[in-house]
Amino acid sequence: MNSPPLLQQLITALRCLPGVGAKSGQRMAYHLLERDRDGARHLARVLAEAMDRIGHCSRCRTLSETELCSLCANPQRDASQLCIVETPADQAIIEQAIDYRGNYYVLGGHLSPLDGIGPKEIGLEQLDQRLAEGEVKEIILATNPTVEGEATAQYIHDMARARQIKTTRIAQGVPMGGELEYVDGATLAHAFRGRSEI
Amino acid sequence: MNSPPLLQQLITALRCLPGVGAKSGQRMAYHLLERDRDGARHLARVLAEAMDRIGHCSRCRTLSETELCSLCANPQRDASQLCIVETPADQAIIEQAIDYRGNYYVLGGHLSPLDGIGPKEIGLEQLDQRLAEGEVKEIILATNPTVEGEATAQYIHDMARARQIKTTRIAQGVPMGGELEYVDGATLAHAFRGRSEI
Repeated sequence: MNSPPLLQQLITALRCLPGVGAKSGQRMAYHLLERDRDGARHLARVLAEAMDRIGHCSRCRTLSETELCSLCANPQRDASQLCIVETPADQAIIEQAIDYRGNYYVLGGHLSPLDGIGPKEIGLEQLDQRLAEGEVKEIILATNPTVEGEATAQYIHDMARARQIKTTRIAQGVPMGGELEYVDGATLAHAFRGRSEI
Repeated sequence: MNSPPLLQQLITALRCLPGVGAKSGQRMAYHLLERDRDGARHLARVLAEAMDRIGHCSRCRTLSETELCSLCANPQRDASQLCIVETPADQAIIEQAIDYRGNYYVLGGHLSPLDGIGPKEIGLEQLDQRLAEGEVKEIILATNPTVEGEATAQYIHDMARARQIKTTRIAQGVPMGGELEYVDGATLAHAFRGRSEI
């Protein structure tokens, strides 16, 4: 079809969104043009502003509009606990789900030597400086339970041990509400090894 | 979580996209901010430009950047056939799928008196003027096979009959590759009524 070139550009541009392909991009473009031009204009404005104004917190590296994010700037948070996560999304999930009052440190990824991602790329030099300040008494490792996440956790554990700081790892086991039948073997093995007395 | 307000605004703004809710909006926002800021900036630009510059073709009412869309402006198209569709997306699907060489007329919806959508709102006055020009010899009704789409097709059929213009309706029956077992009764009834000799 001889689509207006701009319409084709819009469909292509929408594919930068995760999970959006040619078909859903087309559906979105037509929907916005036919039904919600105001919403689309608003989205365009917010999108441009967010990309320009949201940077990273200089202390914990999470996404932040300000030099220091609201959590790092909050004196009510317990500075002796530092939870290490891979992404700002992981941090958001923990904040939403549980009553944790300590601080965070966001790696922005995990160690992956084959991709050229070493300790420096995920901010471990800066983390080491922070540990040197002496305020942190416990590091809670909440990296993903993947091979890379485990390797990253182990690396940080070694760093912390060199400074005599306690490190803990979030528990791995069968998820709440799950059925044993559908749990994979690795998770089940973890759950058995991590069993506790009742 | 004390998210940056701009991040929350972005998540909310993304929900103007069809099929995007709180969870997927959050996932999209984090993805763009962490991995594809350039793509997001490009999307913001194209989105704003598309909403401002894409209007409707003055002749067939489809989405177009120009006063007359490329199909209406093309003298190679057969002006004696006019295919009536509900949306620009329907038009695009027909153009992509089959070798139709006539023109289109895009209603932008269907008759729906309860929602205040009458003949005028879906451009039937303008269509009647076009039929009065005498160039159109066949109207191909390709509105959706829904109650509203059928009612709209019937209305246009009556308009065309008043001007002695032939109208046809695209065939309804079992879809190619479908299995009879999973076809609904109404479709099956249509398929039986519309059976042809082999």
